[in-house]
Amino acid sequence: MCAGDDKSCPEYESHRLRQSLALDQERRSFVKSAFAAAGGLAALGAGGISLVTPEMARAAAANQPAKRGYHHLPATSETVHWGYFSKKLKPQVEIDPGDFVTIEALTHHAGDDWDRMIKGDPGAESVYLWTRDKKGVNRRGAGPIDASLFGRGAGEGLGVHICTGPVFVRGAQEGDVIELRIIDVTPRPCANPSYPGKAFGSNAAAWWGFHYKDLLTEPKPREVITIYEVDATGERNWAKAVYNFRWTPQTDPFGVVHRTIDYPGVPVDHATVKENHGILKGVRIPIRPHFGVIGLAPKEADIVDSIPPSYTGGNIDNWRIGKGATMYYPVAVEGALISVGDPHASQGDSELCGTAIECSLTGTFQVVLHKKADLAGTALEALDYPMLETQNEWLVHGFSYANYLAELGADAQSEIYKKSSVDLALRDAFRKMRHFLMTTKKLSEDEAISLMTIAVDFGITQVVDGNWGVHAVIRKDLFSGVEA
Amino acid sequence: MCAGDDKSCPEYESHRLRQSLALDQERRSFVKSAFAAAGGLAALGAGGISLVTPEMARAAAANQPAKRGYHHLPATSETVHWGYFSKKLKPQVEIDPGDFVTIEALTHHAGDDWDRMIKGDPGAESVYLWTRDKKGVNRRGAGPIDASLFGRGAGEGLGVHICTGPVFVRGAQEGDVIELRIIDVTPRPCANPSYPGKAFGSNAAAWWGFHYKDLLTEPKPREVITIYEVDATGERNWAKAVYNFRWTPQTDPFGVVHRTIDYPGVPVDHATVKENHGILKGVRIPIRPHFGVIGLAPKEADIVDSIPPSYTGGNIDNWRIGKGATMYYPVAVEGALISVGDPHASQGDSELCGTAIECSLTGTFQVVLHKKADLAGTALEALDYPMLETQNEWLVHGFSYANYLAELGADAQSEIYKKSSVDLALRDAFRKMRHFLMTTKKLSEDEAISLMTIAVDFGITQVVDGNWGVHAVIRKDLFSGVEA
Repeated sequence: MCAGDDKSCPEYESHRLRQSLALDQERRSFVKSAFAAAGGLAALGAGGISLVTPEMARAAAANQPAKRGYHHLPATSETVHWGYFSKKLKPQVEIDPGDFVTIEALTHHAGDDWDRMIKGDPGAESVYLWTRDKKGVNRRGAGPIDASLFGRGAGEGLGVHICTGPVFVRGAQEGDVIELRIIDVTPRPCANPSYPGKAFGSNAAAWWGFHYKDLLTEPKPREVITIYEVDATGERNWAKAVYNFRWTPQTDPFGVVHRTIDYPGVPVDHATVKENHGILKGVRIPIRPHFGVIGLAPKEADIVDSIPPSYTGGNIDNWRIGKGATMYYPVAVEGALISVGDPHASQGDSELCGTAIECSLTGTFQVVLHKKADLAGTALEALDYPMLETQNEWLVHGFSYANYLAELGADAQSEIYKKSSVDLALRDAFRKMRHFLMTTKKLSEDEAISLMTIAVDFGITQVVDGNWGVHAVIRKDLFSGVEA
Repeated sequence: MCAGDDKSCPEYESHRLRQSLALDQERRSFVKSAFAAAGGLAALGAGGISLVTPEMARAAAANQPAKRGYHHLPATSETVHWGYFSKKLKPQVEIDPGDFVTIEALTHHAGDDWDRMIKGDPGAESVYLWTRDKKGVNRRGAGPIDASLFGRGAGEGLGVHICTGPVFVRGAQEGDVIELRIIDVTPRPCANPSYPGKAFGSNAAAWWGFHYKDLLTEPKPREVITIYEVDATGERNWAKAVYNFRWTPQTDPFGVVHRTIDYPGVPVDHATVKENHGILKGVRIPIRPHFGVIGLAPKEADIVDSIPPSYTGGNIDNWRIGKGATMYYPVAVEGALISVGDPHASQGDSELCGTAIECSLTGTFQVVLHKKADLAGTALEALDYPMLETQNEWLVHGFSYANYLAELGADAQSEIYKKSSVDLALRDAFRKMRHFLMTTKKLSEDEAISLMTIAVDFGITQVVDGNWGVHAVIRKDLFSGVEA
């Protein structure tokens, strides 16, 4: 390959990108050292009470090479897919079960403040590249590539998240379960030398928010972007607001005018907006760094909108999916095809206005594969929903439709946006928690229903992702007693 | 008065009850000593960050006598009203602002296991008294006294909670705000000598539960009662199941057959049910003692079903309304008329199957009165919803209808049961949290909406009380920062 300096090289763009990433040592080494500081590989395996028993761990280990591999997947225009999942995507990295992989995830709201969230960052710049003639990543969303539906742009923004991946897990097949351990999560430091030691995120109170048609003050309706500052040095566990502005019609480099936030990655021209500084004075927002999107490719369709969460995970938007948590996902296609995106610095249960503090993050994961044949009689047998385990809790995720692609017919991907309710999501969460207690804990239905009424907390995960979510939280220590 | 030993005395029943209560020293002294152990009066007033500023506290104190009074309101057939609120009720105790009052609250599910929850307890026996000829408390619910609607019994069970009170607060008038500090909460020890040091509660998976029409196993549908044991000595912070049974048609002492749980206080004949022991083995349920119902009399109607919560509180069923918490309620009628009932040993967010661990408790409260004239410009100005403050959080309570009595017309009390949804309750919780942030914290609407999206958690309080509930939780320490 050329060194990124030979414009006549047919792969000049690609080589140049790799070269610039290689030069991006300082920021990259931060991520690596953070992983090392957290104990790295050595700290793992201690475990506690878990859905995975020692027997299951042994069975999983039997499918792993003797030595754990470590992989790094940067976020670049070549390693991301924007706004969709697809079982047809070429894997960006192949890993063995048990391997570790560090994955960079970029927020799709970085265009709200190019200076703070893109400038000087080769990976982000490659993804966000958009000139009169070309885009770093053309397709954004699962819609038509020729924008024949709404004219917004390729993919039509039917799906918005920049997803890094997919990661192909060797040996993973439909019916298996992926145990994804989130080893570490760190903010992506701002690469602009004007903001050393800082990271930034954007919160968009957008047209798809729960509040949008229910505003008190003029002008109505309106979309408002708030930019938050997050400490990237690891010293502060809170974020603070920097400024906000009202969205104004933005003309993208191809000349399309976006009156609302209808297409991801449109760079906001700050000459057209009024920045209000001095907002939320003295307010410190506790950070809860997590990934809004971690998903496996579904089998039901070739290209699937990244917005509605479903049985293989995706855009669950639960802030508890952060460092120290473990997710369990059913595998739907060969290789599992894991993608990571929608990084959040913080979010409340409900994600009310439409987005979190959307802030680029880097995660380090260990990927364990549980083969279907090893799962008979275990807590993960026939798992058909994404499940979360934290140090002290188990959580099931209910959606208005548990598998909307299968349930809502040929037009599922548009129908889902018309049919969601919290009531339906609660219904699904109830059924999943009952299933969890009856299978994993071997309770009778009557025991399960009584227990979930007196000891399980149902919360509203999100009401902005097409397929609305309710999570149910049960504490592990309920089961720690010995019958006296 | 006679000493409860002269059957010819016209007030024999009443005197006998008082006498037996006076003899009930051992159990009563437990409650008192628990209050003393918790620091009693001396411990109060330290406070922390609160909605009530020192200025507001001084203004409130100006309306209080120099010395705090202490009152004790036992639960007896003469001090409770069953299944309804009413501004017409005669106060059971009159207190000055700032006074302390200990209020005994009886569960309305004690009839599920008379031996464990009523027997030997003079107060409970007086309330639950029901022979062929008479009931200790005749009216149970806001329905017709002649049971002309369904024939279930007086009041028709349209409202179910045994409420102790009302407490008349001198000087309280419409537009004022009651600050109710929950100083202590203790389980009511079982009075049956067979169960020393224990308390018991009942969880009914009932026809009004969210699960009822969505069962997996036969027979469908069914109602199931689970009896739980709670430690009454204060040494254990968990409950455990004792046994469960399926509800069978129960014939009450007046001869009415109750095929489902359609009228409160029906004593279950255990010869007709099969007790399943050995259930939920080894499961320890963390206790969260709290009052499902604390409410002020509404002004909109003379007699109001106790089940749907509303702007004056009532059956909010939030497990956080326990020891150490403070509630703020708008006063709707003269004297405020506070009643307490529906004691719970534990409950999860959603109260899914219809009830909590329904378990008699005794609470000690301090009642502070904030006069309307003192509230201008404060966090409590024009408060028109029940608000909760804990040590570290503020919570607003959204309902499907914020004030259903005013919103749903003449048939509000039946209409409310047809119209609730979690979505509507989330809408109301969003509006209330926005109001709270814009008034109390002086944020702009845009600031409030962004903040509640990234830092406020919305949870499902209950989906079984006619008027469904969603609570929004915000941490106080968000506002502790100093702008750098």
